[in-house]
Amino acid sequence: MIAHSFRGQVFGPAQRLHGATYVVDLEFRRPELDSDGLVVDIGLASTALAEVLSDLNYRNLDEVDDFLGQNTTTEFLAREVFDRMSQRIAHGHLGESARALTALRVTLHESHVAWASYEGALPTSADG
Amino acid sequence: MIAHSFRGQVFGPAQRLHGATYVVDLEFRRPELDSDGLVVDIGLASTALAEVLSDLNYRNLDEVDDFLGQNTTTEFLAREVFDRMSQRIAHGHLGESARALTALRVTLHESHVAWASYEGALPTSADG
Amino acid sequence: MIAHSFRGQVFGPAQRLHGATYVVDLEFRRPELDSDGLVVDIGLASTALAEVLSDLNYRNLDEVDDFLGQNTTTEFLAREVFDRMSQRIAHGHLGESARALTALRVTLHESHVAWASYEGALPTSADG
Amino acid sequence: MIAHSFRGQVFGPAQRLHGATYVVDLEFRRPELDSDGLVVDIGLASTALAEVLSDLNYRNLDEVDDFLGQNTTTEFLAREVFDRMSQRIAHGHLGESARALTALRVTLHESHVAWASYEGALPTSADG
Amino acid sequence: MIAHSFRGQVFGPAQRLHGATYVVDLEFRRPELDSDGLVVDIGLASTALAEVLSDLNYRNLDEVDDFLGQNTTTEFLAREVFDRMSQRIAHGHLGESARALTALRVTLHESHVAWASYEGALPTSADG
Amino acid sequence: MIAHSFRGQVFGPAQRLHGATYVVDLEFRRPELDSDGLVVDIGLASTALAEVLSDLNYRNLDEVDDFLGQNTTTEFLAREVFDRMSQRIAHGHLGESARALTALRVTLHESHVAWASYEGALPTSADG
Repeated sequence: MIAHSFRGQVFGPAQRLHGATYVVDLEFRRPELDSDGLVVDIGLASTALAEVLSDLNYRNLDEVDDFLGQNTTTEFLAREVFDRMSQRIAHGHLGESARALTALRVTLHESHVAWASYEGALPTSADG
Repeated sequence: MIAHSFRGQVFGPAQRLHGATYVVDLEFRRPELDSDGLVVDIGLASTALAEVLSDLNYRNLDEVDDFLGQNTTTEFLAREVFDRMSQRIAHGHLGESARALTALRVTLHESHVAWASYEGALPTSADG
Repeated sequence: MIAHSFRGQVFGPAQRLHGATYVVDLEFRRPELDSDGLVVDIGLASTALAEVLSDLNYRNLDEVDDFLGQNTTTEFLAREVFDRMSQRIAHGHLGESARALTALRVTLHESHVAWASYEGALPTSADG
Repeated sequence: MIAHSFRGQVFGPAQRLHGATYVVDLEFRRPELDSDGLVVDIGLASTALAEVLSDLNYRNLDEVDDFLGQNTTTEFLAREVFDRMSQRIAHGHLGESARALTALRVTLHESHVAWASYEGALPTSADG
Repeated sequence: MIAHSFRGQVFGPAQRLHGATYVVDLEFRRPELDSDGLVVDIGLASTALAEVLSDLNYRNLDEVDDFLGQNTTTEFLAREVFDRMSQRIAHGHLGESARALTALRVTLHESHVAWASYEGALPTSADG
Repeated sequence: MIAHSFRGQVFGPAQRLHGATYVVDLEFRRPELDSDGLVVDIGLASTALAEVLSDLNYRNLDEVDDFLGQNTTTEFLAREVFDRMSQRIAHGHLGESARALTALRVTLHESHVAWASYEGALPTSADG
């Protein structure tokens, strides 16, 4: 639940300080399940996402250092969440089994009709 | 899509400037349909709601004169939309037939899991 | 999934022959559960609703005798389904236990944002 | 996410041990907002609901002492959650302000099409 | 909200004149965001979609010249909306930035359980 | 609506016998529509899915021979439904036209926030 404003005529009234609720969905992909029959440990994944979001939630993003000079659009934020989750996966926060994940899709729903996703490959163990 | 902040320890991190997307549903009630077989002219109702919301949308509610010193919670805003729609109904903005409406419920969804409603009787023609 | 047209300027382009998908929800009410711990036998209720809808589905309602000279609006059809279900309840089609139902609400969703309901009391055994 | 079985021919194959996911919604009502502009402290309400559900979640309800000889239907469980939340409200677990709540509705969704609710008045401070 | 009928035994009762509500979702894809941080100007995209749909809405598709001799199934209509949106993108109706879009997916929901999509690549500037 | 238990510390309280409701969505893909303008005969597809699910529904999966020694996680079951539907497609249960389907995605929703999919290519006629 963040506040922000946008720069650029294309944004019309959204150039004013306003806000949004984002509901965040994650979609993890892998070709084969792990030995427990899982794609990912949903408990560890939820904890990691909660950590990522707690750095952004209940803030005015116009004042967050990382985003200075940046339009924090829904699609930009989807990429940001993707990058921060990818790092946590690479650092083992989602468990050893999660290193076999091959792709991640992050979706931010800003209302019941508007959303944006970022989707990309994850570095595999073999790449590491 | 508004920005605002709350005063009171109960709000925790929501005391900071943050924001929310509200999806607004209206539920109109009447005992009998009008001569066209309708509860309300959905075109006129949508226009009236759009007018009401355009006064609130893309704003920092902390700076709106009507709300000074007020926590603009979801439940407070539901009541506010109810009052503004009731006035428009009483003034004939939803058509003559809409004067036979007996009740209105306004729901603001702030996410897929959290929402607040205000519901109440509408003054009938006989009251006027 | 019906076709129909409306008469009256208020309907604008919907005066032309067009169509709609209706998703129908039923809400049964009673003060106490029956001896099985149920509000209603959901199997019998589904069968009765399927019968009611099969008389209406895949039709041009402009050509259905029961509706001649009638705008078959969503709100009108909600009442129609209510009446037909009430009859089936009174005739025992939903089982003996269903005679203790006190109210029914019928909702027709015509899209993810527009719907109409009819809700009313059901005659109780004591009334019969 | 519970397992259970039902007794009674009306349940057909659900007489076998099977299971269900329930998504639980609470709707709190009061005539006037509290001094913070709230219906209820959503944080305290969520904690209380989590406590209530943790006694039921990931269990075979056929083996829970409180439910022996009882069909744990969706509608029965809605009442059970209502009773347990009412007690917590009466005992002040949702804060002093929550004593002004006048009604509660508990809905258990068992799928995207089937649900059951229990709704009733809450004892007010004046009753206590 | 269209009326239509189908030819072919596979359609059963849908061979009769009937109707449907379609809720239309568009999903635009591009590898990099534009200089405003956007995938697409959602205002221009909504206007273009509204134009495309206004040619189809509130009609009996059996009488639309473009569709003579054609079963206007949900999946056929998804392709039709895709083609008409692609043309508008190519003609610059969604802005210069939209020429960098690489793919489009069009989904028509005909109820809460049934839908069809058409998805394909968009010609890029380099192709033009 | 199944009961089951899981083996492995990662499952925490889900190691106890519990249960779940799964709502199953199928997504069929093909490059060109068939001569009726369809991706698949939705009637035949629904019948085939109902058959597949009737072997699993209202059961304790811990006691199903096919799954002995297997954690019947949501993602495992998605694959299982995929395999059983693929066989029916290959055997012509969805009609001759369905042999031109190129891919299938099976999604099991276990709540409004958690789901798992399995998606893969289908053998084409040319492969057969």
